[in-house]
Amino acid sequence: MTKQKNRTAITPTRDEDYSEWYQQVIKSAEMAENAPVRGCMIIKPWGYGIWENIQKFLDNKIKETGHENAYFPLFIPLSFFQKEAAHVDGFAKECAVVTHHRLEEKDGRLVPAGELEEPLVVRPTSETIIGEAFSRWVASYRDLPLLINQWANVVRWEMRPRIFLRTTEFLWQEGHTAHATEEEAIEETLKMLEVYRTVVEDILAIPVIIGEKSPGERFPGAVATYTLEAMMQDRKALQSCTSHYLGQNFSKASNIRFSNKEGDLEYAYTTSWGMTTRLIGSLIMCHGDDDGLRLPPRIAPKHVVIIPVIPKPELETMVLDYAEKLAAELRNCQYEGQSIVVYVDKREKRGGEKNWEWIKKGVPIRIEVGPRDVDSQTVVVARRDESVQEKQSVSVHDLKNQVSSILSEIQQNYFTEAKHYRDSQLYRNIHTFEELKAFFTPKNEEKPEIHGGFVLAKWCGDPATEELLGELKLTIRCVPLEQSRTKGKCVLTGRDATLDVVIAKSY
Amino acid sequence: MTKQKNRTAITPTRDEDYSEWYQQVIKSAEMAENAPVRGCMIIKPWGYGIWENIQKFLDNKIKETGHENAYFPLFIPLSFFQKEAAHVDGFAKECAVVTHHRLEEKDGRLVPAGELEEPLVVRPTSETIIGEAFSRWVASYRDLPLLINQWANVVRWEMRPRIFLRTTEFLWQEGHTAHATEEEAIEETLKMLEVYRTVVEDILAIPVIIGEKSPGERFPGAVATYTLEAMMQDRKALQSCTSHYLGQNFSKASNIRFSNKEGDLEYAYTTSWGMTTRLIGSLIMCHGDDDGLRLPPRIAPKHVVIIPVIPKPELETMVLDYAEKLAAELRNCQYEGQSIVVYVDKREKRGGEKNWEWIKKGVPIRIEVGPRDVDSQTVVVARRDESVQEKQSVSVHDLKNQVSSILSEIQQNYFTEAKHYRDSQLYRNIHTFEELKAFFTPKNEEKPEIHGGFVLAKWCGDPATEELLGELKLTIRCVPLEQSRTKGKCVLTGRDATLDVVIAKSY
Repeated sequence: MTKQKNRTAITPTRDEDYSEWYQQVIKSAEMAENAPVRGCMIIKPWGYGIWENIQKFLDNKIKETGHENAYFPLFIPLSFFQKEAAHVDGFAKECAVVTHHRLEEKDGRLVPAGELEEPLVVRPTSETIIGEAFSRWVASYRDLPLLINQWANVVRWEMRPRIFLRTTEFLWQEGHTAHATEEEAIEETLKMLEVYRTVVEDILAIPVIIGEKSPGERFPGAVATYTLEAMMQDRKALQSCTSHYLGQNFSKASNIRFSNKEGDLEYAYTTSWGMTTRLIGSLIMCHGDDDGLRLPPRIAPKHVVIIPVIPKPELETMVLDYAEKLAAELRNCQYEGQSIVVYVDKREKRGGEKNWEWIKKGVPIRIEVGPRDVDSQTVVVARRDESVQEKQSVSVHDLKNQVSSILSEIQQNYFTEAKHYRDSQLYRNIHTFEELKAFFTPKNEEKPEIHGGFVLAKWCGDPATEELLGELKLTIRCVPLEQSRTKGKCVLTGRDATLDVVIAKSY
Repeated sequence: MTKQKNRTAITPTRDEDYSEWYQQVIKSAEMAENAPVRGCMIIKPWGYGIWENIQKFLDNKIKETGHENAYFPLFIPLSFFQKEAAHVDGFAKECAVVTHHRLEEKDGRLVPAGELEEPLVVRPTSETIIGEAFSRWVASYRDLPLLINQWANVVRWEMRPRIFLRTTEFLWQEGHTAHATEEEAIEETLKMLEVYRTVVEDILAIPVIIGEKSPGERFPGAVATYTLEAMMQDRKALQSCTSHYLGQNFSKASNIRFSNKEGDLEYAYTTSWGMTTRLIGSLIMCHGDDDGLRLPPRIAPKHVVIIPVIPKPELETMVLDYAEKLAAELRNCQYEGQSIVVYVDKREKRGGEKNWEWIKKGVPIRIEVGPRDVDSQTVVVARRDESVQEKQSVSVHDLKNQVSSILSEIQQNYFTEAKHYRDSQLYRNIHTFEELKAFFTPKNEEKPEIHGGFVLAKWCGDPATEELLGELKLTIRCVPLEQSRTKGKCVLTGRDATLDVVIAKSY
């Protein structure tokens, strides 16, 4: 991150104040804003369009892998919620609780009335309520596997909310499956992790490390939690999703039993897996630059924006006709089997203002067309993966031939750039707790966030040692599935150790 | 509704007990079930697949008409909710209220803790929370029209819940728009009503009467509410959607103001419009028969189900190969520009059992294939719009040529049948309150629901007279947009009247 010499569209820059830069990118791109309800957000059309594209891709993958969508209640009776002990411990501190079912006037003020016999928890996740349904739906091995997904909103009360990253209400999908055997359930857990990897790496162009969570970072009630860890440009980690193998913990809590081929009753093996609107925060922090958002074409709500430049009112019709004709022609060009999404920006605003708006929104390709272009059948093309000063005049003919490959290049460039950065900040030379502490201690007090990285080190695997990391505000992000299998010393305790782990600060 | 002589798949039949028949159709088709949370439902994959098809079609239409999707918080602070007086009056009695933000153990029990300073209402609809955002987003006439839609869950506490029709939580879309002029806002209200009409009539094959609600039936806070009224097979009306012109009521409550071209501040004119999962209840009650659900092809999650009939284990491979090959060929046939959705039912169940399952689920076309069909390159075809006994052997070649037109025919047949029934139960010969009362009084006390219909009568337009209908458990369903403009006497008061209105019992 070298500071640009020119004026940047976003103030402050990433170098100056990464956290504030993040907020400003979201604001400038009109992606979302804080709602008047504490901790909640309003997702504006540009942010929601990105979410819709994530949904579209992921929903197809979820269906291709044999799952069906369904919908379960928003409210969970307190008695259900308490069924799995570790689960309720994990979520009790952050639950929105419905206690009344109407409002009534009292002393001129509207107050809650009609107190419920049993309070209802607004779902923070749906294992317990879906488990109850599964217990009724599953009777025989013939009913298995049961492969269900839900698109929904969930609520986890946040004391330190941060837009997209930590919000009291967020949107997600949650998959819930039940299987006859442990092997099949573990296979499912990893299959969905791989589906998530395609969403994050292939669609959002964010490179990830695939791994299992350490016991201290596991989902409350899970036997094993798998994750994809991505690096943001401030070198912190962001968990892109989780996929949980739940063993028989939840099937015992919810009584999900089936008679096997021999006619004996067995508890099913269950999984759950989720991906949320948090991913949009990851997208911003992985690819954004000091001019704002940069969207990989596969996730961009618009691929190409055409900005008509009209120096004199009498040229308006000619330029607009040219722009619309161009748009129609580009829409006929295919990008990965889909029609290219082209928008002609005819709003009552100055061209320069429009141009900067689309830069900040991260549209992959901007095209300016003016009277001279009409004469020469050319256009002026700017790519968001290049500097804002760079523009190229090309013929319409060439543009039509190249537009699809330009989009592919931009997609690839973002991934390569992010991977390059991530790999350059992956440290393997840290062997002791002292070295770890020194590495993560800010050298420059004024910019405490600009230091650190991902440390790939050895760990002895003792869950009790994870607390040591807490003091440094670090966590084991994951035990990568790809292990070196070499021997070494635990970075936390100095004991013999074989496990490779990734340690980092995180969101 | 003449009773079938043969055994029916659904017990009771419509004639025997319409209300229980409805529940049984839902259960048999595995569409949904009551959740353990009072008044809430679990929408199972078959029901949710229908909702996804409604969403897909409607979402496209909403976008084609220039709207963008966004997302607003689930929770509304009580102070916001109170801003529009009629609005809060309309919803106060059915609000789920969040009062606490965590759970804590007390005397060995988990109880709500962390009381909120201001209670939060779980949105029953989002005018007030979206209005607050609009007030910040709109400054100039250049920001208008603002055309926003949201797909969401909403909660209205139901004392007498009924699956799909009245549930405490339901799914919907709610459009919210702001405009510079009254004319434009009214145009928008009617434009979206027409979009809804295409969903209900063209996709769900349910004929509707398009009209405006009488004052007594208006949305709380609206200036005018428009509706599509459909007739169910028990002759009751079901409101398929509503589209509201809100005038400046909500813009004044939320302070949505813009500076017009002259630089003066004006309140915007707003609209809102919604369509819900209730529509699935309408679909069941409009087309279902005594063998279960009947799905119009345009909304069916599966168009064709192939049931392999395997008399001996050694023939299994041959028959299954034939079935899969047929499925692949049918998937290549187009139905209205889309690939036909074909499912080969290879589950471990008897063929007859499978056949009845798909009848009850209402799949448009069922195909049986057995060893003899392999030899003769034929299939046995059954259509859900024909009697379950009727089956036809046709060649694979002919089936491929005809499948698309058979689906179109089924779609058309359901609409025609429903329209025929509706028109036959539309009464124009009732002129006095006494006649109205007699018409809606059950002749047969044992089957009180099998009587009545839609009465098209004259009304003087005086809102005070609507209460008279309440005594008969009737309502004015709508003032049809298509008016005869003839003069007559008000059916309620005998006064001079010109308005035509539809009066009926309703869901």
